Amino acid sequence: MNFLKTLIPALFIGSSLFGQNTDSIIIRKIYDEALENGHAYKNLEYLCKQIGPRLSGSVNAQKSVDWTKKLMEDYGFDRVYLQELMVPVWERGAKEEAYILDGDTKILVPIAALGGSIASPSKGITAPILEVRNFEELKALGEAVVKGKIIFFNRPFDSKLFNTFSAYGGAVNQRSQGAIEAAKLGAVGVIVRSMSSVVDDFPHTGGMTYQEGVNKIPGAAISTKSADVLSEKLKLNKSSVIQFYFKQSCRTLPDAVSYNVIGEIKGTIDPDGIITVGGHLDSWDLAEGAHDDGTGVMQSVEVLRIFKRLNLKPRHTIRAVMFMNEENGLRGGLKYAEIAKQNNEKHLAALESDAGGYTPRGFTVENAPFSLTHFSNWKSLFAPYLVDAIISGGGGADIGPLRIMPEVVLIGFRPDTQRYFDIHHSSNDVFENVNKRELELGAAAMTSLIYLIDQYGTK
Amino acid sequence: MNFLKTLIPALFIGSSLFGQNTDSIIIRKIYDEALENGHAYKNLEYLCKQIGPRLSGSVNAQKSVDWTKKLMEDYGFDRVYLQELMVPVWERGAKEEAYILDGDTKILVPIAALGGSIASPSKGITAPILEVRNFEELKALGEAVVKGKIIFFNRPFDSKLFNTFSAYGGAVNQRSQGAIEAAKLGAVGVIVRSMSSVVDDFPHTGGMTYQEGVNKIPGAAISTKSADVLSEKLKLNKSSVIQFYFKQSCRTLPDAVSYNVIGEIKGTIDPDGIITVGGHLDSWDLAEGAHDDGTGVMQSVEVLRIFKRLNLKPRHTIRAVMFMNEENGLRGGLKYAEIAKQNNEKHLAALESDAGGYTPRGFTVENAPFSLTHFSNWKSLFAPYLVDAIISGGGGADIGPLRIMPEVVLIGFRPDTQRYFDIHHSSNDVFENVNKRELELGAAAMTSLIYLIDQYGTK
Repeated sequence: MNFLKTLIPALFIGSSLFGQNTDSIIIRKIYDEALENGHAYKNLEYLCKQIGPRLSGSVNAQKSVDWTKKLMEDYGFDRVYLQELMVPVWERGAKEEAYILDGDTKILVPIAALGGSIASPSKGITAPILEVRNFEELKALGEAVVKGKIIFFNRPFDSKLFNTFSAYGGAVNQRSQGAIEAAKLGAVGVIVRSMSSVVDDFPHTGGMTYQEGVNKIPGAAISTKSADVLSEKLKLNKSSVIQFYFKQSCRTLPDAVSYNVIGEIKGTIDPDGIITVGGHLDSWDLAEGAHDDGTGVMQSVEVLRIFKRLNLKPRHTIRAVMFMNEENGLRGGLKYAEIAKQNNEKHLAALESDAGGYTPRGFTVENAPFSLTHFSNWKSLFAPYLVDAIISGGGGADIGPLRIMPEVVLIGFRPDTQRYFDIHHSSNDVFENVNKRELELGAAAMTSLIYLIDQYGTK
Repeated sequence: MNFLKTLIPALFIGSSLFGQNTDSIIIRKIYDEALENGHAYKNLEYLCKQIGPRLSGSVNAQKSVDWTKKLMEDYGFDRVYLQELMVPVWERGAKEEAYILDGDTKILVPIAALGGSIASPSKGITAPILEVRNFEELKALGEAVVKGKIIFFNRPFDSKLFNTFSAYGGAVNQRSQGAIEAAKLGAVGVIVRSMSSVVDDFPHTGGMTYQEGVNKIPGAAISTKSADVLSEKLKLNKSSVIQFYFKQSCRTLPDAVSYNVIGEIKGTIDPDGIITVGGHLDSWDLAEGAHDDGTGVMQSVEVLRIFKRLNLKPRHTIRAVMFMNEENGLRGGLKYAEIAKQNNEKHLAALESDAGGYTPRGFTVENAPFSLTHFSNWKSLFAPYLVDAIISGGGGADIGPLRIMPEVVLIGFRPDTQRYFDIHHSSNDVFENVNKRELELGAAAMTSLIYLIDQYGTK
């Protein structure tokens, strides 16, 4: 595009609704601060590059606790504290090895053990491998066929789904439940096509579960490109047997002490009324947890920083929460809700950012039709920033346990979804893949919503 | 984000408006085809990787003409042809050299000659350098101060502007007109801060102009990071003189023959009624012209391919136009309009994609309030794909000359703007920076709009 010939007219700020003029000015100031003087990007750079991967129970996870606590103390928030909890500890161990065995030919393939998986035997597993697309196909094969085999779950994302989270939701049971279903029929291991929107060489890890009373077998994700190679091999070699070898050394250690990290700006009128904004501080171990969920925690800290910087004195207490252990236990979210309930805290709303730091599109509001209607009145305030898709939908994993207090309105921050699963849980979830302006626009949108909820309540 | 805990409910397709049910089904099919079986991404890969930079008059520009013609012929479009025109020919020549001269210290800095610039003397230019933010500051310095100096234009993008095209619009006169204004006061060269949203080491080229009767002086863009270094040096050295050296070997050759490339699907009911969809085939020379504008031309071809593949028989003739020479002359757009006028063609509408291949946000409609209202009735059809920002605004550079036929409705395809100027006109505008799904969603949105215009007209 060339200069000046095709410029879109500047978007003018301001709302046509009565009484929203002041709000539109404050929201404009929030955006100005985020875009011109934002800290989220440089804070994220520190979290990603100076600390790095932050799997629960790791040394890095503790470093991230210490650093975010200090960061919020240095910002001078009214109260900064830790909330102790126990987290599961899982370690990947030595880098995994895997290959397809086609006669005497070994084709090396990249895999990553799934979080929570047991190790393979120390010499690895070699076994014939069978491809299935879903649990129905697996069950149709039956125990006689499955016994002693490795099961290869290879159902890709449905690319037709506009929202990639829907595509993820349609594929992820292979990863989360595959080892259980395969073990029930006597399989010795599972290899799962990576949960990804793209075809490339990077395996995507993620949580898997076992079931009481069902044999535990090791599970690993294979890169989508190698999944296609393996599938092709299996199609071409109907007569002979394709075998698969993989070796992984992961292990689960005893639970360890860790923390949620919490910062607060005290409310001036109703300090006992709490509005939570958060993301999760832990990440998978393969990369820096930039979009998942460094962006969410740094945006949450930024919400409070902007309130303080603009001298917006909130009526209610605004709390930024860096939840621990979302990825493989949700212990932070559970602990936060447990303590809130135990202390009989009065929570108005909780907003979570855990869908990446991409361009904001809107917010989802969970099971609260009156609040959804109320928030929708603010669409004209969000329209100049194209973040006005305010629809019904889930809040977030970490804030989910707050459902034990039914009056709390749970809200999810919703950025554009198209790129998230390209990098999610893989070694590509790094700082370089975060765009500064997109991150800042998210922090501004979140701050604006928290401001409006603080002013006008939840319904 | 973890699995299944926070999935957004799948977006259901379909419109609640009467009579739009069939349309919503056809649009769903268009999206399915683009997302599941799309060709735009692999075609773009060929254009970027097998052909590459395509500056007007270059060997590569001719290759891109030949290849896109063959591509559309192979798709079996009803008519594929070339439209001959003359284009300016500008060559960068040897890689530029530049440094800041602070006493005896040379600090090398990356620059890129601006398109259309003359060369420096063969030994380069060394002169004191003066920083200004705008033409007012320049004029305030006056001829006595400016004479014999290099002028450094260093006004950055206004990061507060939500739409980065507005920020570009607010900065670009430094690049396009800076050499004229500086030369009027006796300057010997201009160095312009790159038109970019980010601070990094990559200079961004782009068009500059000279003015009849004003001395021609060479102009180059400096990377934003080096612009900051230079500015800092100038601030710190108020007493001594900072000099700047640059050398560039660019030249303008005689105009050469080139072509617009046009493919058509004939209308079944009103074949003389034409709907144009296009982008520009030429690019700057520093990179592959992926987002500017490989995405636009490949999306335009994809519109016709999808019509054909889904056997959608258009009422009017749908024409994909690969315009030549948008970047440094607009000769393709001018020729297209000239011939349309000359042949007394009946054009309904023209849609241009020249703002990058990012996630679609909507469309801008130029000076056609009735059409804007008419198109806005289709918002509910676009809402499931979050591409419903249908607002007043410019169409596009290449289709702009069609304004000589006032009945033609000019429409701009509007993707998200946040990342465009990170890479625009720099060596980073490469295929790797295009996301497959984002590109495909754009092609689907464009096809859907063309489908609706074909069915229901422009007002």
